[in-house]
Amino acid sequence: DFLQALDEVQPAFGVSEEELQQVVQNGIMRFAPHIDVILRDGALRVEQVRTSTRTPLVTALLHGPPGSGKTALAATMAMSSQFPFVKLVSPENMVGLSEPAKIAHLNKVFNDSYKSPLSCIVVDSVEKLVEWVPIGPRFSNGVLQALSVLLGKRPPKGRRLLVLATTSNRAMLQDMDLQQAFLAEMRVPAISSVRSVEHVLREVDLFNGDERAHQRCVQLLSHVGLRSSRDDGEEGAALDESGAPAKTVGIKKLLSEIEMARLDDDPADKLAAALQFM
Amino acid sequence: DFLQALDEVQPAFGVSEEELQQVVQNGIMRFAPHIDVILRDGALRVEQVRTSTRTPLVTALLHGPPGSGKTALAATMAMSSQFPFVKLVSPENMVGLSEPAKIAHLNKVFNDSYKSPLSCIVVDSVEKLVEWVPIGPRFSNGVLQALSVLLGKRPPKGRRLLVLATTSNRAMLQDMDLQQAFLAEMRVPAISSVRSVEHVLREVDLFNGDERAHQRCVQLLSHVGLRSSRDDGEEGAALDESGAPAKTVGIKKLLSEIEMARLDDDPADKLAAALQFM
Amino acid sequence: DFLQALDEVQPAFGVSEEELQQVVQNGIMRFAPHIDVILRDGALRVEQVRTSTRTPLVTALLHGPPGSGKTALAATMAMSSQFPFVKLVSPENMVGLSEPAKIAHLNKVFNDSYKSPLSCIVVDSVEKLVEWVPIGPRFSNGVLQALSVLLGKRPPKGRRLLVLATTSNRAMLQDMDLQQAFLAEMRVPAISSVRSVEHVLREVDLFNGDERAHQRCVQLLSHVGLRSSRDDGEEGAALDESGAPAKTVGIKKLLSEIEMARLDDDPADKLAAALQFM
Amino acid sequence: DFLQALDEVQPAFGVSEEELQQVVQNGIMRFAPHIDVILRDGALRVEQVRTSTRTPLVTALLHGPPGSGKTALAATMAMSSQFPFVKLVSPENMVGLSEPAKIAHLNKVFNDSYKSPLSCIVVDSVEKLVEWVPIGPRFSNGVLQALSVLLGKRPPKGRRLLVLATTSNRAMLQDMDLQQAFLAEMRVPAISSVRSVEHVLREVDLFNGDERAHQRCVQLLSHVGLRSSRDDGEEGAALDESGAPAKTVGIKKLLSEIEMARLDDDPADKLAAALQFM
Amino acid sequence: DFLQALDEVQPAFGVSEEELQQVVQNGIMRFAPHIDVILRDGALRVEQVRTSTRTPLVTALLHGPPGSGKTALAATMAMSSQFPFVKLVSPENMVGLSEPAKIAHLNKVFNDSYKSPLSCIVVDSVEKLVEWVPIGPRFSNGVLQALSVLLGKRPPKGRRLLVLATTSNRAMLQDMDLQQAFLAEMRVPAISSVRSVEHVLREVDLFNGDERAHQRCVQLLSHVGLRSSRDDGEEGAALDESGAPAKTVGIKKLLSEIEMARLDDDPADKLAAALQFM
Amino acid sequence: DFLQALDEVQPAFGVSEEELQQVVQNGIMRFAPHIDVILRDGALRVEQVRTSTRTPLVTALLHGPPGSGKTALAATMAMSSQFPFVKLVSPENMVGLSEPAKIAHLNKVFNDSYKSPLSCIVVDSVEKLVEWVPIGPRFSNGVLQALSVLLGKRPPKGRRLLVLATTSNRAMLQDMDLQQAFLAEMRVPAISSVRSVEHVLREVDLFNGDERAHQRCVQLLSHVGLRSSRDDGEEGAALDESGAPAKTVGIKKLLSEIEMARLDDDPADKLAAALQFM
Ligand SMILES: Nc1ncnc2c1ncn2[C@@H]1O[C@H](COP(=O)(O)OP(=O)(O)OP(=O)(O)O)[C@@H](O)[C@H]1O
Ligand SMILES: Nc1ncnc2c1ncn2[C@@H]1O[C@H](COP(=O)(O)OP(=O)(O)OP(=O)(O)O)[C@@H](O)[C@H]1O
Ligand SMILES: Nc1ncnc2c1ncn2[C@@H]1O[C@H](COP(=O)(O)OP(=O)(O)OP(=O)(O)O)[C@@H](O)[C@H]1O
Ligand SMILES: Nc1ncnc2c1ncn2[C@@H]1O[C@H](COP(=O)(O)OP(=O)(O)OP(=O)(O)O)[C@@H](O)[C@H]1O
Ligand SMILES: Nc1ncnc2c1ncn2[C@@H]1O[C@H](COP(=O)(O)OP(=O)(O)OP(=O)(O)O)[C@@H](O)[C@H]1O
Ligand SMILES: Nc1ncnc2c1ncn2[C@@H]1O[C@H](COP(=O)(O)OP(=O)(O)OP(=O)(O)O)[C@@H](O)[C@H]1O
Ligand SMILES: [Mg+2]
Ligand SMILES: [Mg+2]
Ligand SMILES: [Mg+2]
Ligand SMILES: [Mg+2]
Ligand SMILES: [Mg+2]
Ligand SMILES: [Mg+2]
Repeated sequence: DFLQALDEVQPAFGVSEEELQQVVQNGIMRFAPHIDVILRDGALRVEQVRTSTRTPLVTALLHGPPGSGKTALAATMAMSSQFPFVKLVSPENMVGLSEPAKIAHLNKVFNDSYKSPLSCIVVDSVEKLVEWVPIGPRFSNGVLQALSVLLGKRPPKGRRLLVLATTSNRAMLQDMDLQQAFLAEMRVPAISSVRSVEHVLREVDLFNGDERAHQRCVQLLSHVGLRSSRDDGEEGAALDESGAPAKTVGIKKLLSEIEMARLDDDPADKLAAALQFM
Repeated sequence: DFLQALDEVQPAFGVSEEELQQVVQNGIMRFAPHIDVILRDGALRVEQVRTSTRTPLVTALLHGPPGSGKTALAATMAMSSQFPFVKLVSPENMVGLSEPAKIAHLNKVFNDSYKSPLSCIVVDSVEKLVEWVPIGPRFSNGVLQALSVLLGKRPPKGRRLLVLATTSNRAMLQDMDLQQAFLAEMRVPAISSVRSVEHVLREVDLFNGDERAHQRCVQLLSHVGLRSSRDDGEEGAALDESGAPAKTVGIKKLLSEIEMARLDDDPADKLAAALQFM
Repeated sequence: DFLQALDEVQPAFGVSEEELQQVVQNGIMRFAPHIDVILRDGALRVEQVRTSTRTPLVTALLHGPPGSGKTALAATMAMSSQFPFVKLVSPENMVGLSEPAKIAHLNKVFNDSYKSPLSCIVVDSVEKLVEWVPIGPRFSNGVLQALSVLLGKRPPKGRRLLVLATTSNRAMLQDMDLQQAFLAEMRVPAISSVRSVEHVLREVDLFNGDERAHQRCVQLLSHVGLRSSRDDGEEGAALDESGAPAKTVGIKKLLSEIEMARLDDDPADKLAAALQFM
Repeated sequence: DFLQALDEVQPAFGVSEEELQQVVQNGIMRFAPHIDVILRDGALRVEQVRTSTRTPLVTALLHGPPGSGKTALAATMAMSSQFPFVKLVSPENMVGLSEPAKIAHLNKVFNDSYKSPLSCIVVDSVEKLVEWVPIGPRFSNGVLQALSVLLGKRPPKGRRLLVLATTSNRAMLQDMDLQQAFLAEMRVPAISSVRSVEHVLREVDLFNGDERAHQRCVQLLSHVGLRSSRDDGEEGAALDESGAPAKTVGIKKLLSEIEMARLDDDPADKLAAALQFM
Repeated sequence: DFLQALDEVQPAFGVSEEELQQVVQNGIMRFAPHIDVILRDGALRVEQVRTSTRTPLVTALLHGPPGSGKTALAATMAMSSQFPFVKLVSPENMVGLSEPAKIAHLNKVFNDSYKSPLSCIVVDSVEKLVEWVPIGPRFSNGVLQALSVLLGKRPPKGRRLLVLATTSNRAMLQDMDLQQAFLAEMRVPAISSVRSVEHVLREVDLFNGDERAHQRCVQLLSHVGLRSSRDDGEEGAALDESGAPAKTVGIKKLLSEIEMARLDDDPADKLAAALQFM
Repeated sequence: DFLQALDEVQPAFGVSEEELQQVVQNGIMRFAPHIDVILRDGALRVEQVRTSTRTPLVTALLHGPPGSGKTALAATMAMSSQFPFVKLVSPENMVGLSEPAKIAHLNKVFNDSYKSPLSCIVVDSVEKLVEWVPIGPRFSNGVLQALSVLLGKRPPKGRRLLVLATTSNRAMLQDMDLQQAFLAEMRVPAISSVRSVEHVLREVDLFNGDERAHQRCVQLLSHVGLRSSRDDGEEGAALDESGAPAKTVGIKKLLSEIEMARLDDDPADKLAAALQFM
């Protein structure tokens, strides 16, 4: 009845546009060059699936720290593919499902995709899909195996499929021999440079155009441990000027701290403090 | 039928005022400055949810030793939000439920909350909700995963949600990668200073206004290992004057010891003895 | 149908007098001063529940070695409370129940108690209730969690509850974080002094008033490793005169050995031999 | 339906004489003095249950190496009690039962026993009843717990019960805290002296009265590693003359080897060889 | 319905001749003296069961490396007993059965055997019956326990039973305390001498009577690591001339390699190469 | 109903040609001599099954690194056997099946094969069939045991069966004692020489006949760590010229990288870069 319920909401064959747009609620800000690199890479994979007859199945893994924007980026790539079948598989839609029901759902999405000549499936938060917890460790081997098999299963003749999966725990996938199921990988780093934060501040207009307030904030931010020289995603961006590992913050958390700061009398100070004690 | 029973008692949409008031049976005594800090922080989070469009979901974790007042504080914050949907999720209401029923209940509360424009959910005693026991260790991975997913699931467009969770075992949440699911944290320390105990003694009027008895009691208390100089929650309050870790007592246990002492011929002595041998 | 069967035997609301009396089959002998101390402590807890409005729930744990008399003492305290609702929860009544049925039974007893203004529940042999076995270790986490939650659940407004639990394995409760669920503890030691054994011998009249036989027996007992100087329960009673750990025997096993000896031609000798090789 | 089937075969209330006799197929041979000691001990326990009002429940454990005669001895004691209710609980009657059915069966036997004023239950091969296997280790905690509780459960007023349990793995019972559930223990050693074997040889008349053949056999046996000086069960019988651990053989296996030898041309030689290579 | 299906194929009471013959597809070749020793030993056990009244149950374990001929030998012994009830219990007939169904099947076979005055049961591949795997390790404790109990259960009065079990993993049986359930053991070694291979070559007529080809093959075989001096099964046959462990090959694999070689242009060379790289 | 569904799609008795052809989508390219060796070996096994009466069951294991072509090769061998019953057992057709259903499916395929005089079964990706994951480790012991038994089960009289299994984790099969169930093994190595890549490049015509571009590419490839001297599969092919382990790439991944490179402006460079960073 769960699957039935799903069916009622959206046709098996078609694009779950709304669902995908919801996970990109705050849009994609191009706060650093690597964002463009990732999006271009995604476009190339879309092209490969569309054109090559020898590789009807392409699977890619987007990995990076919590809140770095993986889901938003994968959803954006999927939507821009313009494929007739685009679908998001997310643990959020499976809360409370039994293991067999989860597997059945996964299986159904893949089987549905085989009915369309060109399809794209976003498999979000693989580590939650398999119910991973480091204590034990425990996880659903059933879901893991289903995923592993489906990621390697060629679509039937004449059908082509792009799978974009996301995870914040790539190490776990390696330990489980699941990482080798992907043909390609894309790293989505967290923000570690003042320049990126600055870009975001302007885009959300925290200071309502007050340039002095903005500059003061940037000044404060240069002391919280973020890199001030290079761009995010660049070679060596994991270290700050002194060679120590740079502080990082995911775009998701950064946006939340900014909104919290907005309520304060001194947003610049509040934001710097929040990043300081992260 | 369990969920049905729940429905009969209280409408899915609405405030479970009574339930919340019951967990604050002895009120909130402002025995130390940090109590006000915590309450102010809570009010700020309520404000963030009410006003910002970029952060429709805010999740905070109240953590501290057993009996330090976490549940009473979270319930108080929730009630003062005045949100149209306020709900307490507590292991006490789920005794005997199977794992799937617990997950279904959790899921239902969150789904119900999405129907209200502004909602607040108190998730009490996370370590008991997930049935944690350090031997093994064992726990319900199903409940844990459901919680982890629900804490990260954005409400639908136009809906906003504040989640206040409590735990006396923050270390366990870290080990389970669950702590990273919270956007904010609030520490609720136990009482470690004589000054706080004194405040409580006056508020519950243990000596019926007999000031000499009160002073004698305070005198006795200064030898049981509590701090006598600084306030609770202050920087450095974890150590006593000699630099040793200060003795601590949760407000919950303190109130019980006072009631026990009240029955004694010499309440001051009885209370000091109880705190001494804690 | 199990719970139904229980209902038929005894009304949910009321005192299970008979069941409680059965576990005190051989009465309470005041063979050492600490027995009175324990009983007085119990009476005080009864008073606290009866009178204080701030502590409607008091939970106490009686712990001590196997056969030291924990169950008999807890049952005696419960019966003397004269509360309208007094109930024994024992693994003996739950043999063969499934885990959910055990939890349902526990839950029902607590819920029944909330209907009475004053209630007392004896939870016997916690280590067996949770099906603890040191190999593995294994236990029923479901029962453990239910117990843990119920021991912390405040009765509804106007209701008051005293819970007396017993265990011969306090270390296990600590390992499981269950011990911290109790507001108070009472230690029930085994017999380690000749004086206590002597008291019991007279009370059960092993020698039918033959004082010389009695004296000879006491003489023999002074060589089996029991303490001959101090009383049980006194400070330092765990060691004998030479500083070695004193031999101990639970009152339950002592009564059995005496009955065995009674059948012998030379009861004094038989009893001494039995205690010697323990 | 299993329990129903059991009922049809034998009335719940009564003596399962036939079943008991079957396990003593080869009778009890008094091949060494300790056999009499064990039987006398058993008789004393029967007497204690019959006469003392203070110990309505007596539980004893017969333990010893595989095939040493534990089951035959326990069954013999039970049959000679002449109690109106005598029952054998054996894993052999429970092959293929689920864990709950096993527990239900155990529980039923004990409950049936409570209906008789005097009862005796033989619980055979406890290590198999609990499905113990040293790898893992694994076992049925459900059966273990049921047994542990039933062994401590006093029969109702006016009813008395003797429980005789057997095991070839006493160490396991200790590891499981189950051994402490017994009030008494009886050790059943294997045969380690030539004298005992000689006794058995005569009783089964291996040489059809041919005394010379018998003497030659005894001569041969004195070189296979059995003790030639002291009796079995005596102090120090575990070591042979040279102080090395003596060879031992259970009465069960000895009887089988004798029957095997009987088919041989030279029974004396065959038997000695069999014992040699054990 | 599975058991029902079994019933249809063969009557519960009777000999499953065909099934037994199938496992001896290639007959028993007397390629070395120990084969006769094993068969004579089996005949003796058959005799013991037929004649002795004191040992109505005899259980023997045939153990040896994979493919050494255990199943064929046990089946041959069983068929030559001429007992009215002869039955093969094999994992091959239980693929896909649930654990309870497997236990029920085992139990049924033993119970059926009790209806015949003389019975013989072959329990094949015990390690597979109990689903043993060294990783974990894991196995079916239910089947193990059932087997352990059934192997010790005396048939009812007047019934006699011979059980012949096989295993290629005797160490596992020891670790599981199952080996002690057998009254006797027979070792079935693999082939380690050229003489035995030679015997087999003649019997299957690999060279169609071409003696020179045969001699050349024997010549080649003397360099692949097999023993060239002593017979298999003899004292010291585990070592080759130089004292190193001799190469061994099971009769089953040897027969397969011979058939493979038969297809080759140069069978002698092919066979030697196959044995070389084993 | 799953099995029923299977039946509808393809008759139980017959060749699943289409399914087999699909897994050889890109054909078999003879890029190195060992490919021919493997195929010849397969043909020989087919012959053995067809002709010998002594070995009606032959089982072979194709093992090698991920993507080395195992499945395509096994399917090719099976199809060229021209046996009336040829069947592919693959985890891809069993996604979402319960363990009993998987076992039932396996069992059915083998039982179906017994109805044909000559049969060939391809058991693909054994490590996925048994749901192996190195964490824990976990796997389905039920499927493993079924496979182990079926691999050793002789077909009924007059029936012959060839089983070709594939795995990318031979070590796991060894740890599970499953490898010894195979009569033969075939190693399928990955590509490690420039010569093989060159062969593939020509066959897929990456440069549309532009020989200079091809030569430039070969030139570039000689610096990415592949061997430039010997052929794949040759003795010593695991090491490169300097004695270090050579870089390897599976034919499956190589074909995908080539298709990706085809989209690039400079395919030669792109391909070299891809192989460089592997
Ligand atoms: N350049 C960007 N890349 C990704 N997300 C961006 C970017 N700019 C803004 N965002 C916004 O930041 C948020 C990123 O959150 P998202 O859920 O995608 O992160 P995540 O890495 O998937 O987090 P988690 O680890 O919790 O799954 C979204 O609200 C998105 O609209
Ligand atoms: N300042 C205060 N903060 C919190 N609770 C207070 C305060 N003053 C008085 N109280 C009373 O103290 C008690 C605190 O108990 P509460 O159950 O909230 O503690 P807790 O930390 O949730 O305990 P646990 O760790 O067992 O869950 C309540 O009865 C509350 O009314
Ligand atoms: N002073 C005493 N305290 C407790 N029990 C006593 C005392 N005097 C006599 N008894 C008798 O001793 C027996 C004590 O047994 P009880 O079952 O209470 O012990 P226990 O500690 O609960 O044992 P277990 O550890 O097996 O649960 C009862 O029969 C009781 O009547
Ligand atoms: N003195 C004796 N004591 C016990 N059994 C004896 C004695 N003399 C002869 N027997 C016979 O020896 C056999 C003992 O076997 P029994 O099954 O009782 O041994 P066990 O120790 O229970 O074996 P297991 O360890 O396998 O359970 C019985 O057949 C019994 O008739
Ligand atoms: N002397 C012999 N002993 C046993 N088997 C022989 C002998 N000579 C020929 N054979 C043949 O060798 C084969 C032995 O295979 P069998 O299945 O009995 O071995 P196994 O040890 O049971 O193998 P596994 O370890 O796989 O169970 C049979 O086909 C049998 O006919
Ligand atoms: N010589 C060859 N051997 C095998 N496959 C080849 C060969 N030449 C080309 N191919 C193609 O390469 C691909 C090999 O993929 P295949 O799935 O068989 O690899 P695999 O080793 O089974 O992979 P996996 O480890 O993922 O199961 C197929 O598309 C096949 O058509
Ligand atoms: Mg995400
Ligand atoms: Mg709380
Ligand atoms: Mg007790
Ligand atoms: Mg026995
Ligand atoms: Mg075999
Ligand atoms: Mg493959």
